Amino acid sequence: MKTFKGISASPGIVIGKVFLYVDDAGQIPKYTISADQVDAELERFFVAAGKAAEEIRDLQAKASLTMRKEESKILDSHVLMLSDPEFTKRIEESIRSQLLNAEWVLYTTINQLVEPLENSADTYLRERTIDIRDVAKRVYNHLLYRDRINLSDLDQEVILVTHDLLPSDALAMNKQSVKGIAMDAGGKTSHTAILARSFEIPAVLGLSSISSSAATGDTIIIDGTSGVVLLKPDQRTLAAYEKRIRAWQRREVELLTLNELPAETRDGKRIVLKANIEVPEETESAIAHGAEGIGLYRSEFLFLQPGGYSSEDVQYDAYARVLKAMAPYGEVTIRTLDVGGDKVIPGMAGLDEKNPILGWRAVRFCLSRKDLFRTQLRAMLRASVHGRLRIMFPMISGIEELENVLALLDECRQQLREESIPFAEDIPVGIMIEVPSAALTADILARKVDFFSIGTNDLIQYTIAVDRGNEKIAYLYEPFHPGVLRLLKRIIEDAHNAGIPVAMCGEVAGDPYAAVILLGFGLDVFSMSSFGIPEVKKIIRSVSMSEAEELVGTIMEMKSYKEIDSYVRSWMNERFDLAVT
Amino acid sequence: MKTFKGISASPGIVIGKVFLYVDDAGQIPKYTISADQVDAELERFFVAAGKAAEEIRDLQAKASLTMRKEESKILDSHVLMLSDPEFTKRIEESIRSQLLNAEWVLYTTINQLVEPLENSADTYLRERTIDIRDVAKRVYNHLLYRDRINLSDLDQEVILVTHDLLPSDALAMNKQSVKGIAMDAGGKTSHTAILARSFEIPAVLGLSSISSSAATGDTIIIDGTSGVVLLKPDQRTLAAYEKRIRAWQRREVELLTLNELPAETRDGKRIVLKANIEVPEETESAIAHGAEGIGLYRSEFLFLQPGGYSSEDVQYDAYARVLKAMAPYGEVTIRTLDVGGDKVIPGMAGLDEKNPILGWRAVRFCLSRKDLFRTQLRAMLRASVHGRLRIMFPMISGIEELENVLALLDECRQQLREESIPFAEDIPVGIMIEVPSAALTADILARKVDFFSIGTNDLIQYTIAVDRGNEKIAYLYEPFHPGVLRLLKRIIEDAHNAGIPVAMCGEVAGDPYAAVILLGFGLDVFSMSSFGIPEVKKIIRSVSMSEAEELVGTIMEMKSYKEIDSYVRSWMNERFDLAVT
Repeated sequence: MKTFKGISASPGIVIGKVFLYVDDAGQIPKYTISADQVDAELERFFVAAGKAAEEIRDLQAKASLTMRKEESKILDSHVLMLSDPEFTKRIEESIRSQLLNAEWVLYTTINQLVEPLENSADTYLRERTIDIRDVAKRVYNHLLYRDRINLSDLDQEVILVTHDLLPSDALAMNKQSVKGIAMDAGGKTSHTAILARSFEIPAVLGLSSISSSAATGDTIIIDGTSGVVLLKPDQRTLAAYEKRIRAWQRREVELLTLNELPAETRDGKRIVLKANIEVPEETESAIAHGAEGIGLYRSEFLFLQPGGYSSEDVQYDAYARVLKAMAPYGEVTIRTLDVGGDKVIPGMAGLDEKNPILGWRAVRFCLSRKDLFRTQLRAMLRASVHGRLRIMFPMISGIEELENVLALLDECRQQLREESIPFAEDIPVGIMIEVPSAALTADILARKVDFFSIGTNDLIQYTIAVDRGNEKIAYLYEPFHPGVLRLLKRIIEDAHNAGIPVAMCGEVAGDPYAAVILLGFGLDVFSMSSFGIPEVKKIIRSVSMSEAEELVGTIMEMKSYKEIDSYVRSWMNERFDLAVT
Repeated sequence: MKTFKGISASPGIVIGKVFLYVDDAGQIPKYTISADQVDAELERFFVAAGKAAEEIRDLQAKASLTMRKEESKILDSHVLMLSDPEFTKRIEESIRSQLLNAEWVLYTTINQLVEPLENSADTYLRERTIDIRDVAKRVYNHLLYRDRINLSDLDQEVILVTHDLLPSDALAMNKQSVKGIAMDAGGKTSHTAILARSFEIPAVLGLSSISSSAATGDTIIIDGTSGVVLLKPDQRTLAAYEKRIRAWQRREVELLTLNELPAETRDGKRIVLKANIEVPEETESAIAHGAEGIGLYRSEFLFLQPGGYSSEDVQYDAYARVLKAMAPYGEVTIRTLDVGGDKVIPGMAGLDEKNPILGWRAVRFCLSRKDLFRTQLRAMLRASVHGRLRIMFPMISGIEELENVLALLDECRQQLREESIPFAEDIPVGIMIEVPSAALTADILARKVDFFSIGTNDLIQYTIAVDRGNEKIAYLYEPFHPGVLRLLKRIIEDAHNAGIPVAMCGEVAGDPYAAVILLGFGLDVFSMSSFGIPEVKKIIRSVSMSEAEELVGTIMEMKSYKEIDSYVRSWMNERFDLAVT
């Protein structure tokens, strides 16, 4: 048995058989060929290129039902490249003159093609490089593995083990067959992680070397909740995990019985629990877990598509779909594009910055790319007729920035009125409170908006000056640091004094250990991953506001994170059975 | 006339003649030579290598008076490399076999040598690469310019214009002859900037292309205060700048007359003005400008030497020198190593981090490199017998971190006691307040230390979540953001409630426009670049505390940075003539 520790990207435990998906870019073989091997080498190349083209056409056909026109166009351009005579002639000549193998010649040719594009000031050109590399990888794969299985063809239930996934592969993957994912690369916000969570496939990423250790057919355990992968587990471990899966399932069933019950404290304070989602497909899971609305619809996924931004219509469709689906259950808070920081979108902000987390991101990026920003705001406004929309702006740091985004929103409203396009007139507009300067001036900002939503992940990073992705200092990322708790308390008090409600959509909102503290601070709305809702609801239903306020009173007198953390943990563990999650 | 805008690295205005110091690394010529040119090419190489060795020996001789043993050792190793037969044989063979010019062969050979070292896990080996490249540059220079002038040989007053300066050149430069510096590369915290400030040489860095535009003998104006360089100025501009220089000198003289007067408000509140320094040489300037102590001695310079960290003895000497020089004037606050963030020291923290400003820096770095930390603390303690030392820890984010550094300091005290090495028993120990979580828990931290010093640069960056080095969003760096001002007020109140004084050593402390606000907040100590002291003193002596408190009362009611900034600027401009700086 071999144990691997990675990043918990999508929760849940699953046991299954490995399907090893090999993707060997970066290890391109290089060898010389003799002059009389040239023709055979050329044939190898053309066969591989043909198969790659066929594969892409297949993808298009299979996905035509679920894929939008624009995605399909991207794949068209992929096929075009492979049949471009300029391109194939260049490969042919290089193989003849350099007497090197096809993989290597393809590799160097692609680099020559891509390098000037990568340095181009033109965003569109830079993005094309992703497509070119995607196509090239398909050809390499055919050169290296004649009978490679396509991920959309998988017909058995497997655990997908791979080095990394291309965006096109992740999109095309048969989600019914893939029961778990273990990957060398990737982090919590990668394409694959987002997809895994949205389809509730347990996934552990960032495992470094799993793909070189596992073989197809190996038994494997994926514990997406704790970020552990066990390869070829022994019988005892297997039995233990089978037991945990059963316990997990029992617990899930038990928690789901809470669905029909309100999130209300024992003394009658009604709390609203909402879901965070990344793709429209997740609304189903949100409803199934009892979400009373979407507290955070991250719009970034619409911009992660290879080939570029989504058009106004594509965005409108996605927003309308979520609004319609959620209309009977509650409001949908869509956050405007939060690019940059750790969310790097090819060709967009966050590239080449020395400190992207403190950089050109979210509304800072959008305010300097008003074309994109207007498109998104128009799409949201248009979709507003289909449900109960709320618009939320991320990374607001002060009143001037807020006034600028509100002015732009008004401009878009005015445009639509002039074009006689209908939209809801009473859309609540709010901001994320995630920058300390916004938290410290919450009283000023609260007078300009309809709601706050606290983004704890960034707020904690800035307040303690710690990039939690940096393993050398991640230990300093302390949600219960007294400085952080004081800020949270202050934000909520300032908002309530101005008569507006406060939500929280960062990870802390879904942390069962934080639930009673947040209750005690007076938080109105908890928004989290759908699967976390039942547990938090159970906690809320088990305590009274006076207990919560007493807990807060006690910890706010404490001086250190450690003291608070250990006190809260034992307080919670005495009352709740939280150990399983 | 051509105008260049760069980074204001050292203030002051100067007019003079360009001395263009060419340093063409990165533009290594490559050409083939015929077989019968090989011997001539080898001769070229050996002559250049010999001259470089001679030059280094010269440097050693000239600098022996001012240079420490360790610096001298570094130069020894440089000479050794050039006379290493393994190395020269390798060059010789490559020239023979590849039939390429000596510059190119040297370049590729050095890269082969350096690459494995650069990827080495060993810090010492990685640092050696700087030395190897330094030596190689000297040889290139001799290959390319037979009669190149050495910077230590300059005997005329010149304005140095160059692409970049080697650490060894910056150290060796004749500071009497160089009256101004204009450089393509470099930033505010570069080696050259630090040296320029410490020798009061006006300097503008980061000019990108000045070295390819200027020629030796051109007339040039360096305005280090506003970061502007004017090449071949017309008569009118020249006359205008000559007038500005005279005005500046008059003003300097006038301000220096304040030296003997205390920094006291009109209603008798006594403020302490101190200097920030980076090298011991600056104490002279601090005293000349009337500093009542060193509020911030940045110890990083001792770690910037090529070849590695300074030993305990080297540090002890530097600290003792400053303490002795300042003893009649006031206390010296030495800050422990503040590496990382934007202060990258070769081989130390800050490399390969995605967000170095939120990363492994200052006490975070030191607590994981206790060997280095202990060496520094021991050197400080030992030096404490020579004057009035205060020890200051940067980047403290919470009480646990503070307790850890205090424990280490106690450990060092105990060690010295056991070794019977004397040190002052009553050294005040304080912390920088520059992380928002520290500011928000200032009441807790204040009970554990003897003083606070507010580091505004980082505090503002974290509070507004903005890397001010990132030009795309630097506009958000707002010292008068109401969130920032509220934090400053709170820190000072919390400290005073705990009975400890508060200093400020960030840039805001030296900003004349901020002086009255800081007075109004109750700041006790202003610490800044020496040359800023007289102006701030003049302002303090011209206002009363009640005026300052009234100003603070007014701006703390305001909602936006812009509103506050424009109010403060007009308030100050009505009362003071600040336009010249």
